[in-house]
Amino acid sequence: MIDFRTDPARYRHWRLEVDGDIARLVMDVKEDGGLQPSYEMKLNSYDLGVDIELYDAVQRLRFEHPEVKAVILASGKERVFCAGANIRMLSLSTHHHKVNFCKFTNETRNSIEDATEHSRQVYLTAINGACAGGGYELALATDYIVMADDGNTAVSLPELPLLAVLPGTGGLTRLTDKRKVRRDLADFFCSTEEGVKGRRAVDWRLVDEVVPRSRLEETVRARAQEFAARSDRPSGARGIALPPLARRIEGERIAYDHLEAEIDRDRGAVHVTVKGPAAPPPDGIAAIHAAGAGFWPLALARQLDDLILHLRSNELECGTWIFHSSGDAGLVEAHDRALVDNAGDWLVREIQLYLKRVLKRIDVSSRSVFTLIEPGSCFCGTLLELALASDRSYMLLGRFEGDNRPPASIRLTEMNFGRYPMVNGLSRLESRFLAEPERIEALKAEIARPLDAEAAAELGLVTFIPDDIDWEDEVRIAIEERAAFSPDGLTGMEANLRFGGPETMESKIFSRLSAWQNWIFQRPNAAGEKGALKLYGSGQRAEFDRRRV
Amino acid sequence: MIDFRTDPARYRHWRLEVDGDIARLVMDVKEDGGLQPSYEMKLNSYDLGVDIELYDAVQRLRFEHPEVKAVILASGKERVFCAGANIRMLSLSTHHHKVNFCKFTNETRNSIEDATEHSRQVYLTAINGACAGGGYELALATDYIVMADDGNTAVSLPELPLLAVLPGTGGLTRLTDKRKVRRDLADFFCSTEEGVKGRRAVDWRLVDEVVPRSRLEETVRARAQEFAARSDRPSGARGIALPPLARRIEGERIAYDHLEAEIDRDRGAVHVTVKGPAAPPPDGIAAIHAAGAGFWPLALARQLDDLILHLRSNELECGTWIFHSSGDAGLVEAHDRALVDNAGDWLVREIQLYLKRVLKRIDVSSRSVFTLIEPGSCFCGTLLELALASDRSYMLLGRFEGDNRPPASIRLTEMNFGRYPMVNGLSRLESRFLAEPERIEALKAEIARPLDAEAAAELGLVTFIPDDIDWEDEVRIAIEERAAFSPDGLTGMEANLRFGGPETMESKIFSRLSAWQNWIFQRPNAAGEKGALKLYGSGQRAEFDRRRV
Repeated sequence: MIDFRTDPARYRHWRLEVDGDIARLVMDVKEDGGLQPSYEMKLNSYDLGVDIELYDAVQRLRFEHPEVKAVILASGKERVFCAGANIRMLSLSTHHHKVNFCKFTNETRNSIEDATEHSRQVYLTAINGACAGGGYELALATDYIVMADDGNTAVSLPELPLLAVLPGTGGLTRLTDKRKVRRDLADFFCSTEEGVKGRRAVDWRLVDEVVPRSRLEETVRARAQEFAARSDRPSGARGIALPPLARRIEGERIAYDHLEAEIDRDRGAVHVTVKGPAAPPPDGIAAIHAAGAGFWPLALARQLDDLILHLRSNELECGTWIFHSSGDAGLVEAHDRALVDNAGDWLVREIQLYLKRVLKRIDVSSRSVFTLIEPGSCFCGTLLELALASDRSYMLLGRFEGDNRPPASIRLTEMNFGRYPMVNGLSRLESRFLAEPERIEALKAEIARPLDAEAAAELGLVTFIPDDIDWEDEVRIAIEERAAFSPDGLTGMEANLRFGGPETMESKIFSRLSAWQNWIFQRPNAAGEKGALKLYGSGQRAEFDRRRV
Repeated sequence: MIDFRTDPARYRHWRLEVDGDIARLVMDVKEDGGLQPSYEMKLNSYDLGVDIELYDAVQRLRFEHPEVKAVILASGKERVFCAGANIRMLSLSTHHHKVNFCKFTNETRNSIEDATEHSRQVYLTAINGACAGGGYELALATDYIVMADDGNTAVSLPELPLLAVLPGTGGLTRLTDKRKVRRDLADFFCSTEEGVKGRRAVDWRLVDEVVPRSRLEETVRARAQEFAARSDRPSGARGIALPPLARRIEGERIAYDHLEAEIDRDRGAVHVTVKGPAAPPPDGIAAIHAAGAGFWPLALARQLDDLILHLRSNELECGTWIFHSSGDAGLVEAHDRALVDNAGDWLVREIQLYLKRVLKRIDVSSRSVFTLIEPGSCFCGTLLELALASDRSYMLLGRFEGDNRPPASIRLTEMNFGRYPMVNGLSRLESRFLAEPERIEALKAEIARPLDAEAAAELGLVTFIPDDIDWEDEVRIAIEERAAFSPDGLTGMEANLRFGGPETMESKIFSRLSAWQNWIFQRPNAAGEKGALKLYGSGQRAEFDRRRV
């Protein structure tokens, strides 16, 4: 079982050094510290375990270190920055592990860019030696790259010539869309094993600056200070601690404080119940800080994040995630209001950004997502985003026989209007109403109003509203039908239908780049017994089917 | 060998009926008329041969029928519109045939939209019975869909439930991005075999209008007349004939009047030499019309189009296309000027649009594309687009020893500035200079000026400029290196690097949708011995690996 929970005291591959408003995140991969014993992680190559620590460090820097305004990514090895994803690990991995690994590493690199852009905690890279493949892709996720100008140091994307795969962790897309490297130069760069060094790397826009080795450290620190000076993060603020997440797995049940999941193996489904807050939000921003990781929106974000990552990696046959909720919608609304009212506070901003990232994980998960809205639920505002992120939602019209609770209702809050953009840059409401953007304005008039099933359907916010006579059959058939379809076909369908409208660099990474990489990971030229990925390091040459597809 | 050349007298599957300014394109697929005898094309299902005729008809309507302002797609069968791509054909096809087939059908549907939008020859569909899968995708390519309102008629995309693949000929993307169907309704629609009929199809935006069967014909004709009344196509103009293309294949040589290709099998490369015009353009628009298909830009477009399609389908192991040119750049420039000066004429507009589509085919071809610019070449304006469409270009600095011709030069014309947009909506110059859009304005000052290698490199228009000492080795190594890489890896890399910046519906179809479909076509759940595509019609149920990827 892969566990995504960690903390700095347990890091094996990274050192987190904080010095005033500048932090250094130093990669120093332990060669025998792989998730599996079957490969050695030489030259700062990495596997999922290394990336789990990186993800944790990026999170902690945001929450525990509000004072840090710039983060320098650096290598702890003498003459190498990072050799990229461990190739032996890749060649030994199943298809789904490779794809899942790439998705998580992509999300982590996106979270670095999110910190830079939205938390104003700017990432920079200091390259002190070979920076290849995933190593350069990591650097590309930062906003400023300084490289030592010596014979030993180059950036390269040697995936195609060496392994017959793509620089699939954002590399190709960030070349063209972030650094805007000319396409023909990018073509040459991506087909040369040795990479590009020195002045040419700057001229081609591959790095921002090259300096003599002796001045690398001081230069990147000077740049970090310049970025820090422009950051709006608070000086002298106190961070909040992110204590270990309590999670209990008992049989088919996975429980957190605010979240419970129950696996239905026969139907390949997981029922996830989100619990609304038990009390009103703390009164005022000081009280929110005092609550810290216990503040319901943050606690929920952390638990949901962990659950999604756990299910993705460890429950591959659970193809359908079904969201439920229970609790008091008024209390959810009050918490949303606390987020809106204190949006200028650094911690509240972090919480909102974190919820945004967790919701984005759902959008790009290769699982069918349903939401069931029943009496006793509290799909309001932030929690309503779960329904809006779903491939379908079902809302009970009226009550179940013998149930005295009021019929289900949903509520919009300000949080539904642009605070949680998807990877395509649109809110889930905007994505939903591409045909009628004017609906968004009309929906604003409904903020805070409880909407029953008929009103919700009329407004286009839910998919189907069966009554108690039809509910059980309709929902059961939908879930069983999902389980009968091809998991791959569903993945492809959902990846297309979820993202109408515009694309961003981020959405292009998940669609164009990842989709092609997944195809290549399935092709004999890479992954077959005589494929380049399989044979790498064996001394044997790959045999290619030369037909172009 | 697959031949893309045909004409209405040879059609087996379509009838083209022209009646004043309205045409009907009637699909009536001959069951035993498949490209291979191993499948029967029942219920208006289609294979590549059917689509080759459709493509030809769309082209002829534009050039031979300027008077036609609206085109009604209809079925020649009693109770079925079209059942989509023939499933047995798909299940028997190799991976590369499936992918190549889908690419051509996508391009043909895009050409229908191009005719509607840019030639103002608007396509409509009359649905008179089951309209499933590729049948509905064909309807989606038209701008107005009228459907009979009876128990027998429905639109559906049953690919996922029936075959475990995607509606991959634009279907999913046109649902969300063209018709802007709500994502949850699209999810339901794409997972229900029986589809959606009647009023619900209109409410969900799947079709534009439903009418009683008895009024289908008159309704669609009335709508066609409304569109025709708004078209800017000329009334009473005379079309030009598109005579059969003369092509000679002799050994490794493929020759047309203005084009020659020479295959180098050892290096998996094709050298394509485009010949510039032999004389100045006809003087004035009447003379251009009189020249008709003999007018150099149109003749070249037709020949290049045919060559690309031929190479894609019949020369799979030729992974690198290398463009050369020979001729007088001044004459190319004069032809470009004729296109610009007469841009308001319907025929000249068609020629430009055709060249645009042919160049777009190059962009989305899964072949490496190089251009070699040597003395005697004429890469000017329209022909310079070949170099700009290339993954790399090499331009000789100076002369070859013993060659008295002047050094190579290239020239920009107005045709390079937005007249040939790529699928992403940008010109090739805009795509090239994403980092410095201001360069485009500066380049306009260079229009018509011969640029030698140093100037071309300085302006960023060519990739490398070796001199005669380095030329042979550098070019040879680049070509041989390309032949040594994985064909699949190259396809994925090129599909990413060629399209920086924005996306359009069209580019999303080639990237997101096609990439996922190609992956699925490679997955055992669809294409394996127990996959759904393989077992369809056998009475056996597919066995799925239930793990989500």
